[in-house]
Amino acid sequence: MMAAKKGLRGPRRPQKSAAGRSNLQKRSVTTMNERNETTLSRLHGRLVVSCQALPDEPLHSSFIMSRMALAAFQGGAAGIRANTVEDIEAIRGTVELPVIGIIKKVYPDFPDVYITPTMAEIDALAACGAEIIALDATARVRPGGRTLAELFGEAREKYPEQLFMADCSSFDEGMEAARLGFDLIGTTMAGYTAYTKGRPVPPYDMIEALVRACGRPVVAEGNIGTPEELKRAMELGVWTAVVGGAITRPLQITKKFVAALG
Amino acid sequence: MMAAKKGLRGPRRPQKSAAGRSNLQKRSVTTMNERNETTLSRLHGRLVVSCQALPDEPLHSSFIMSRMALAAFQGGAAGIRANTVEDIEAIRGTVELPVIGIIKKVYPDFPDVYITPTMAEIDALAACGAEIIALDATARVRPGGRTLAELFGEAREKYPEQLFMADCSSFDEGMEAARLGFDLIGTTMAGYTAYTKGRPVPPYDMIEALVRACGRPVVAEGNIGTPEELKRAMELGVWTAVVGGAITRPLQITKKFVAALG
Repeated sequence: MMAAKKGLRGPRRPQKSAAGRSNLQKRSVTTMNERNETTLSRLHGRLVVSCQALPDEPLHSSFIMSRMALAAFQGGAAGIRANTVEDIEAIRGTVELPVIGIIKKVYPDFPDVYITPTMAEIDALAACGAEIIALDATARVRPGGRTLAELFGEAREKYPEQLFMADCSSFDEGMEAARLGFDLIGTTMAGYTAYTKGRPVPPYDMIEALVRACGRPVVAEGNIGTPEELKRAMELGVWTAVVGGAITRPLQITKKFVAALG
Repeated sequence: MMAAKKGLRGPRRPQKSAAGRSNLQKRSVTTMNERNETTLSRLHGRLVVSCQALPDEPLHSSFIMSRMALAAFQGGAAGIRANTVEDIEAIRGTVELPVIGIIKKVYPDFPDVYITPTMAEIDALAACGAEIIALDATARVRPGGRTLAELFGEAREKYPEQLFMADCSSFDEGMEAARLGFDLIGTTMAGYTAYTKGRPVPPYDMIEALVRACGRPVVAEGNIGTPEELKRAMELGVWTAVVGGAITRPLQITKKFVAALG
């Protein structure tokens, strides 16, 4: 699967090669543009808070998400991950923090890949100025029957100075995303693909292996539920870590408390 | 201090004497009205989520608090604690859960007592139909130079069928509140009065002692930060427990995560 994709590899920006060679402690050799430098620098070693509420969730509201982002900012977060252009715009109007933007959209032909699954969502996120665009970077086929290499190759060509984050479910996917030229390698999908379902989360083993091998900033994301888990993930050498539901989904937090009552 | 207040003891409802005699496992002997019976029954052994955001907090908004209450309800909460008539009305329009209502108001003459500190706030909470009205029940002097016994005596006389919860900071205050006729004895203020500042919280010792001695349903409230702490408080035999910031204050939760990064 990985080998078959090599022929579809997208164009590689010269400046990204430099970033790829630098290790996580020596980013100064990169030649990325100033905005990207600033974005990465602001996130280094710090917390990103994911502020999302889908239409079926009790906090679904761009206004509420903007206030959640304000709370995160006041609490010391360095970045926000957010879903939809509407939410991102409300958040950017409220706090001056770099945004990892996604658009969750389910296409009927390939519903499994739903995090920024096509160029339409990438275009929308680029247009609204998201500092980082994250997309599903699993090995699964995307809407339209496209591979990740096809989609990302086009995205990189179209937006050569845009930071892209890969939402991966396995070490192999993270390595492939780095090879394709993603700027940040995330563990977001670990446990959420059919072939990783039931794996231990947070995926410390995957995080640790990617930090050692992928040559790009790694983002710990997914199922970080406590400050202790965040600390452990960060100590593995990730660039930044994303915490979502444990901070911004009161329904999920309430369930954990209620579960303790048996 | 406690002895001095005895002379100021307010009128006692006959039906409340029955409730006072019943232990926590044998509430059926009470002769309280049906609405109060239902309210207490619904809260027994279950979680109350406090949904509050003061004007200087990022989530300050009755709309947001109503959605927080919905999240708590969907997560399995059995009741909501809320501040201000506006928030309570928004919450009651969204979820059908019993509400512990408070009004936080600082009066310049005695600013320390600010949770439902005068009859004006009690009147407003009774008018909006809060199933339980909570008020500061510490030994401190209230606005107007009034004692708790004076204020509560009048409140009980004016609202003989209203459930009242005492927000206490010490065992002695809880015992005094039970003696005065409060229906529920809470540990809300433990650590928040000058004479309890720095005490260990959650105040398990105070909770345990009140459950054994006060003869009224005890409410564990204040600084319950994890499901484990909730479980421990509940196992001490409280009637119900209130969790607030750990669920509904994302700023506070973010701070805990950020603190873990050192």
